[in-house]
Amino acid sequence: MDYKSSGVNIDAGNETVRRIKGLARATFTPGVLSEIGSFGGLFSLGAAWRDPVLVSSADGVGTKLKVAFMTGRHDTIGVDLVNHCVNDILVQGAVPLFFLDYLATGALSPDVAEQIVKGLAQACRDNGCALLGGETAEMPGFYAAGEYDVAGFIVGAVERDHLITGRTIAPGDVLVALPSSGLHTNGYSLARRIAFEHVGLQADQHVAALGETIGEALLRPHRSYLPVMRPLLATGRVKGMAHITGGGITDNLPRILPADTRARIDRSMWDVPALFGWLGAVGEVPVEDQWRSFNMGMGLIVAVSADDADWLLEELRSSGETGAHVVGGIEAGAPSVRYA
Amino acid sequence: MDYKSSGVNIDAGNETVRRIKGLARATFTPGVLSEIGSFGGLFSLGAAWRDPVLVSSADGVGTKLKVAFMTGRHDTIGVDLVNHCVNDILVQGAVPLFFLDYLATGALSPDVAEQIVKGLAQACRDNGCALLGGETAEMPGFYAAGEYDVAGFIVGAVERDHLITGRTIAPGDVLVALPSSGLHTNGYSLARRIAFEHVGLQADQHVAALGETIGEALLRPHRSYLPVMRPLLATGRVKGMAHITGGGITDNLPRILPADTRARIDRSMWDVPALFGWLGAVGEVPVEDQWRSFNMGMGLIVAVSADDADWLLEELRSSGETGAHVVGGIEAGAPSVRYA
Repeated sequence: MDYKSSGVNIDAGNETVRRIKGLARATFTPGVLSEIGSFGGLFSLGAAWRDPVLVSSADGVGTKLKVAFMTGRHDTIGVDLVNHCVNDILVQGAVPLFFLDYLATGALSPDVAEQIVKGLAQACRDNGCALLGGETAEMPGFYAAGEYDVAGFIVGAVERDHLITGRTIAPGDVLVALPSSGLHTNGYSLARRIAFEHVGLQADQHVAALGETIGEALLRPHRSYLPVMRPLLATGRVKGMAHITGGGITDNLPRILPADTRARIDRSMWDVPALFGWLGAVGEVPVEDQWRSFNMGMGLIVAVSADDADWLLEELRSSGETGAHVVGGIEAGAPSVRYA
Repeated sequence: MDYKSSGVNIDAGNETVRRIKGLARATFTPGVLSEIGSFGGLFSLGAAWRDPVLVSSADGVGTKLKVAFMTGRHDTIGVDLVNHCVNDILVQGAVPLFFLDYLATGALSPDVAEQIVKGLAQACRDNGCALLGGETAEMPGFYAAGEYDVAGFIVGAVERDHLITGRTIAPGDVLVALPSSGLHTNGYSLARRIAFEHVGLQADQHVAALGETIGEALLRPHRSYLPVMRPLLATGRVKGMAHITGGGITDNLPRILPADTRARIDRSMWDVPALFGWLGAVGEVPVEDQWRSFNMGMGLIVAVSADDADWLLEELRSSGETGAHVVGGIEAGAPSVRYA
């Protein structure tokens, strides 16, 4: 009995590493000191930082992967993963330094792995983040044919005195929402059940209410808020930011609220995009569940003092972010969200 | 249709996070600035470093997980994962700072998740590494009932002038092997096929040649080489280290060899432990495949100058490492391993 007969193909692994190397190298920033294939990836912070705090996060893409499997499109999942991670550390004021991925599959296809890493590398480049390494695991008997799971790990940095914590959020502050590009990477178990089981759609079917196929609508990549927020991180005027992921606004916004403060979201101030309205309506999803499952079109919510609201909107507009709006504010109460 | 009916149980997720928090908090080192549950984990390097290089690695446990599923024992897999990651950055001279995990499952069991995180937290504490965060993903339809996948991500640091690269390895140097505790986390697809399919054992069956059950032998955790190697990292006398993982000595040792150097492993100088002999014999595995699939009892191989061999062995002995031996040396040739 030899190793290959056990279901693990070392040669496919080596071929995958070969293809990945060039994609990863194109993301390297001046801090990178190593080549892909070392035991560990090496990164130097350099002399540019005074008192850096490392900010790190791990995440997956969840069952959005099933939409990639249905459509056979594997080059956007990596964009989802990187941008999700970038936003998760951005909300604390950090800019990304490097990213590593974990890709696990039953039988490794170098072609699919290359598509996935293409997406990772593209998004890393767009965010100025090095794809420093990763692990590609072939695990016979774990994943269905053609399926895989992928996780991402990001490390960023922020000067300690520029950390954004939400600590100064107080009643009277306002909340500004930045539009999401779609479901981002959350709510997919529910959305797929509605679209593909309840309604019975195929991924390539056009949905009039959406103006595109359901596969296109559901696969649209998670956007990164780094380009528009980066110029504002060190101003000291951004009090807090919440990345709206699993659990929706209902669960994520309270994570940045100090004791005795409550968020008020004025639903009348926000046009919920068609995709969310359609999912809620055809899926007969209770309104509370919609706002706890989906981002409802708001991917990032920023808290600033009332005096800074116009400044924030103007800065965002000058970065090309035209869809941001005030959607509510802070009032006294226990950390939670009150929908008005 | 509500979110819970889509197969995702937010409450089980919250219960899991609650149980994990205390376990993780017990691993926190002075560098940790955040609580579990923030968007990102915060870590400060502090003032102790002059010119630190961050060393990072991502890994999984591979199909060793299947042995955990068979035996119902979930508290050692986390030890495997952490120690694997610790060793992967140790070989470049780095000590661990923090660790994050990704745990994915079809239906989340807070009990199993707690067992897994117990192992992660125990190993993090043993290595002086903070369990800074992680992601627990419930992905209906991805994993078989009772199964899961887990990945780990580690960040460590080393002073730039203490980086261990293998660059100075030259003909005449000697190779010292440190014993593994078992298969560590590699070769499991082959080992499981031999033990459970070819021989047809149950996990709880006693194997006379091993003196224990096959489940115990295969599940034994990956050991960390940090405690015995840590005092030697900054001496400048360790030229290179190879962590023997997937691909065995054959594929891993050449990763640290400079051009024009070849490693010679004298098999007669090493007693291959019973587990490897048994797997090779009953599985009729060609010898080359054994040495490319399993660590054969050598979990870490250290290169030093011939003059430093006795020093290294003495230092290791004084740290309680009595099983280390010279197993070969460096000769002229293309980077590869010659078995003698």
